[in-house]
Amino acid sequence: MTAQPKAVVLFSGGLDSTTCLAVARSEGFLPCALSFEYGQRHSVELLAARRVAAALDVHAHLILPLPLGAIGGSALTADIDVPKDRDPATMETEIPATYVPARNTIFLSLALGWAEVLGAEDIFIGVNALDYSGYPDCRPQFIAAFEAMANLAVKEAVEGRLRIRIHTPLLHLTKAGIVRLGTSLGVDFGLTHSCYDPTEEGLACGRCDSCLLRKKGFEEADIQDPTRYRPSL
Amino acid sequence: MTAQPKAVVLFSGGLDSTTCLAVARSEGFLPCALSFEYGQRHSVELLAARRVAAALDVHAHLILPLPLGAIGGSALTADIDVPKDRDPATMETEIPATYVPARNTIFLSLALGWAEVLGAEDIFIGVNALDYSGYPDCRPQFIAAFEAMANLAVKEAVEGRLRIRIHTPLLHLTKAGIVRLGTSLGVDFGLTHSCYDPTEEGLACGRCDSCLLRKKGFEEADIQDPTRYRPSL
Repeated sequence: MTAQPKAVVLFSGGLDSTTCLAVARSEGFLPCALSFEYGQRHSVELLAARRVAAALDVHAHLILPLPLGAIGGSALTADIDVPKDRDPATMETEIPATYVPARNTIFLSLALGWAEVLGAEDIFIGVNALDYSGYPDCRPQFIAAFEAMANLAVKEAVEGRLRIRIHTPLLHLTKAGIVRLGTSLGVDFGLTHSCYDPTEEGLACGRCDSCLLRKKGFEEADIQDPTRYRPSL
Repeated sequence: MTAQPKAVVLFSGGLDSTTCLAVARSEGFLPCALSFEYGQRHSVELLAARRVAAALDVHAHLILPLPLGAIGGSALTADIDVPKDRDPATMETEIPATYVPARNTIFLSLALGWAEVLGAEDIFIGVNALDYSGYPDCRPQFIAAFEAMANLAVKEAVEGRLRIRIHTPLLHLTKAGIVRLGTSLGVDFGLTHSCYDPTEEGLACGRCDSCLLRKKGFEEADIQDPTRYRPSL
């Protein structure tokens, strides 16, 4: 019997990263989930991450404190209003105030460090080039450049004993496609959390970019949306 | 009068990064020093960083908590003995237990995030390919790959409004060359700290890789070593 290889999965407990984790598991990897506590307004997200990781029976779950708020520049970590009710065309082309500077670069770098310690060659990230076309660090060119850099950064890779691979199974899927994929893999999306501006009880606002995309995904997939939204005012 | 451009300088308060910061300043940049509190055994290093940053009158100094100890794998962050009295040939070819996984990748990624917030195009890192040839993330190939990736990660760079440059002014210098360069730029090396295993009062052990290289540098440069070493047992 061959040992199952480990894979580091960047994991927020949201719809995308949870589906990504389910894909890693379905491909035979032992998923090692990596979450960050980066001064999110929505620390509700971390509760969801713990809940989903437990439900998916991950091999390991590391929650790393990462005070990106000290760097500044984002509505997710600083005191800037989360944009609401933006139309889909604007969402696709304009980078919103919720953009965290160099976020995926920083997250992938820390995933690379953990992968090296774990002896894992595989890193999964749930980036998506369709819904987030305004974010350069969600594009395939960026991912390819990161992978090339990673293979020059890690001793075992430079010496040819392993090859780091960045897996992006959601890269070319629509939100509806992600909902369908997750559902086919048995993901309980009722446990996941996507909202940028939830209530303290974890109810989703239904109006931030993340909620709007998520709602549209369930609608287009024709799958019932299990998200608990806050009552309309 | 043209405004001076800002540059992010990765800065530990050691001999190399202090010289690197002095180079950035001599090239006309406003140095913004970035230090990390990463569960170093030698938090004495951070005191030195504050002291040197103040002495060099930096434009800004950000000390970011970064609990790399949670990732594990290094004598600098975990409970592994710091190697002592290694001979120079071994030091050049073998990666010691003080290696922090993906360290420069992680540090440069956070520098990139801060550069984006500051509107800076320039990042300085005091890596050296001679003394640290065993570390892949100190090699020019790695730095070039990181720079290529960075220019695909940042919105302003992708849209052609700026170009991220990773500066490595110490890359091909010997330790003696670095001592001479810093001295010529007026650096007071008595304020800097390099030891991996100092006493609580900040006296250097004189025997870890970092101390041995530093000592040799002053000897070969024929410049008096101002380091305060612990008395021999």
